[in-house]
Amino acid sequence: MNQPTNFQSNETGVANAPASLPRRQILAGSVSALAAAGLAGIGTAATAQTNPVVPKPLPAYVGWKDPNSLIVHSATTIETKRQAFGSGLITPAEQLYIRNNLPAPDSAILADRDAWEVAVAGVNQPRTLTLRELKSIGLETVAMVLQCSGNGRGYFPSKPSGTPWQVGAAGCVVWTGVPVRWVADALGGVSAGMSFMTGTGGEKLPDGIDPKSVIVERSVPAQAMTDAMLAWEMNGMPISLAHGGPLRLIVPGYTGVNNIKYIKRLAFTAQESEARIMSHGYRISPPGGKGDPTQPSVQEMAVKSWINGPGTDGLPVRAGLVQIHGVAFGGLHRVATVEVSIDGGRSWNEARFSGPDLGRYAWRQFVLAARLPAGNFNLASRATDVAGNVQPQGRLENAGGYNNTSWADHSVLVTVA
Amino acid sequence: MNQPTNFQSNETGVANAPASLPRRQILAGSVSALAAAGLAGIGTAATAQTNPVVPKPLPAYVGWKDPNSLIVHSATTIETKRQAFGSGLITPAEQLYIRNNLPAPDSAILADRDAWEVAVAGVNQPRTLTLRELKSIGLETVAMVLQCSGNGRGYFPSKPSGTPWQVGAAGCVVWTGVPVRWVADALGGVSAGMSFMTGTGGEKLPDGIDPKSVIVERSVPAQAMTDAMLAWEMNGMPISLAHGGPLRLIVPGYTGVNNIKYIKRLAFTAQESEARIMSHGYRISPPGGKGDPTQPSVQEMAVKSWINGPGTDGLPVRAGLVQIHGVAFGGLHRVATVEVSIDGGRSWNEARFSGPDLGRYAWRQFVLAARLPAGNFNLASRATDVAGNVQPQGRLENAGGYNNTSWADHSVLVTVA
Repeated sequence: MNQPTNFQSNETGVANAPASLPRRQILAGSVSALAAAGLAGIGTAATAQTNPVVPKPLPAYVGWKDPNSLIVHSATTIETKRQAFGSGLITPAEQLYIRNNLPAPDSAILADRDAWEVAVAGVNQPRTLTLRELKSIGLETVAMVLQCSGNGRGYFPSKPSGTPWQVGAAGCVVWTGVPVRWVADALGGVSAGMSFMTGTGGEKLPDGIDPKSVIVERSVPAQAMTDAMLAWEMNGMPISLAHGGPLRLIVPGYTGVNNIKYIKRLAFTAQESEARIMSHGYRISPPGGKGDPTQPSVQEMAVKSWINGPGTDGLPVRAGLVQIHGVAFGGLHRVATVEVSIDGGRSWNEARFSGPDLGRYAWRQFVLAARLPAGNFNLASRATDVAGNVQPQGRLENAGGYNNTSWADHSVLVTVA
Repeated sequence: MNQPTNFQSNETGVANAPASLPRRQILAGSVSALAAAGLAGIGTAATAQTNPVVPKPLPAYVGWKDPNSLIVHSATTIETKRQAFGSGLITPAEQLYIRNNLPAPDSAILADRDAWEVAVAGVNQPRTLTLRELKSIGLETVAMVLQCSGNGRGYFPSKPSGTPWQVGAAGCVVWTGVPVRWVADALGGVSAGMSFMTGTGGEKLPDGIDPKSVIVERSVPAQAMTDAMLAWEMNGMPISLAHGGPLRLIVPGYTGVNNIKYIKRLAFTAQESEARIMSHGYRISPPGGKGDPTQPSVQEMAVKSWINGPGTDGLPVRAGLVQIHGVAFGGLHRVATVEVSIDGGRSWNEARFSGPDLGRYAWRQFVLAARLPAGNFNLASRATDVAGNVQPQGRLENAGGYNNTSWADHSVLVTVA
């Protein structure tokens, strides 16, 4: 709370800093041109705001969530509304997005949480552990951005198949459990030659088809175990069925799909899983192409930010002093700085962070005070992580619509009156 | 996550460090003797665990809360169960305690939150501000322990009148709003000679009686404004009616009653409020006495901790390695260290903190791994703040049952089998 502001001073006017346009990834030419003209966002966020999806009710298994904060795409794909994100550091469970590759198991698995079993393999003393045993091994807590691999897919003009998420397939969540490396230590350490950590979900699989074609099983590089956790609490309460309770594998810095719900097997393996969701799903495929094991897997998250207000509810913003605010995170790295533009990226001003820093994997809230006269403004934010990676202007085009970190795509067109 | 543990090592046995018995406050002789014998808690927490209150349903205005996490004392006094506190840093709204001095206003006040008005006085340019205007002035976020002045009253053998709270009239909550000092700056600064910051609640007062006898109006020292805030979000969502929405005065480090709900007037004043809740309520009165303005007011919180598990559910704990965990906070100061005893305070071992530090006013989660054989154990925790204040063994006896920070009172008797 070190940056006082008031009605008379400290505002940002129409700023004059030269635009900086880093291009770490393949830029989408047409959109970057729009952005350079200060008009990015018109065809994406702005359109979505003015053409709202017809509301669907919440499915019963998430009936405890806040319907006013959410967009129900389907029974297993539910998004947080951009204007519902507050500045409270942690996304409340009732606002958090849902993306399940398979329907959740029967809630009977929560009747005796401590009896849940996970088989641990690829260690020197492999065995099955109950959740009760895991709780005796250790207790740690981490705040982490949980983000669907396809968050931001809704901004791809190519309209990839899959849920057209805008910003709301993400949240910052607190997980409590036991670090995976403590579990591995308790079982004699990881066996030699294991390059991957592979988690297998406990969803019930449909009868009559090859399990590998549907099972949720993902591999991440073994070094991800350093900060990975077997978690039984989310935001201070036992993990709900919808979010993977009673036990979920948490891999900080990795996209949502790598955080295996209802985990029933954790294995250190020499090879990646052969499950289709690993071998062909969640791959960075060329536009129009299909996923295959030779392509990069969607795993580590990259630096990203977006603005959550004002004006994200589609209503006009009152002229005068406004507090432009949003969230920023670095994925694998800590976020270092955030800049905000009110002119679609022609000029930038550094925002300040508000509230405490919850660590490397959490998002931070940022704020920039600006005095806006009547007119139209294209608000954008651009984050930089401690490794010097800068959020790019354009998206990386790919068939699945994954990993969209484009600041231009995430800009917001607001009307000030 | 720097303190690995496993099945074979790193445990705490029956420790040998000499007991340290700091006595900052008046000790309750009989209980300190019990504690020295390793038996504190038998007559307090243990009794309450084995004689549970007959469950009452949640009142309608908090029907969205989690009934399994709460003890309903009355429609306006609802406590979090000790065993419901997780290790997730922040207390979810659905678990957070309720203590309202007056019934909540009609929910119609939430129909247009931004239209809520607060009169600001004792500044050089006094005026009434809408919540919409406040939002334009600034945006900040703070994590803070919110604790009822009477939390721990249930451990007083003298059975003071008032709700017999154990540990659960407290939570760690994230507030978002505008710092009070930025509001004061925007209105020309605080007028000269104002020693207090006085907040007035917007509850509807009963007809036919002197408003001063019932109105919720509290004064704190003016220096408390340094970190005070007019808040509109709690845990990232608009503040619920039950917790003081649409606008609440937040005074970090001060007990709950000083955080005025539905605030309608914020005044910098030369004198303390003459409302009865200030002049006679919430005073540290001698046992058997009544409150009066000459006695210390219940305001700043002091260093405190308690254990939340294992064994707080009253069930036997399995012998072997256990993770003893709880929360610790420093009130006005940052908490520095926590020690844990398994023998009622005869010996202590330093616990580690888990998870990120959310700042001076937040609580921290602590953990100590211990290997417990079958038998009875008295688990206690004792926190020290950065100013060197140590949580005392005994309570400060007072008529109202306020400010109980006794580590002996908060100890837990567990059976290990």
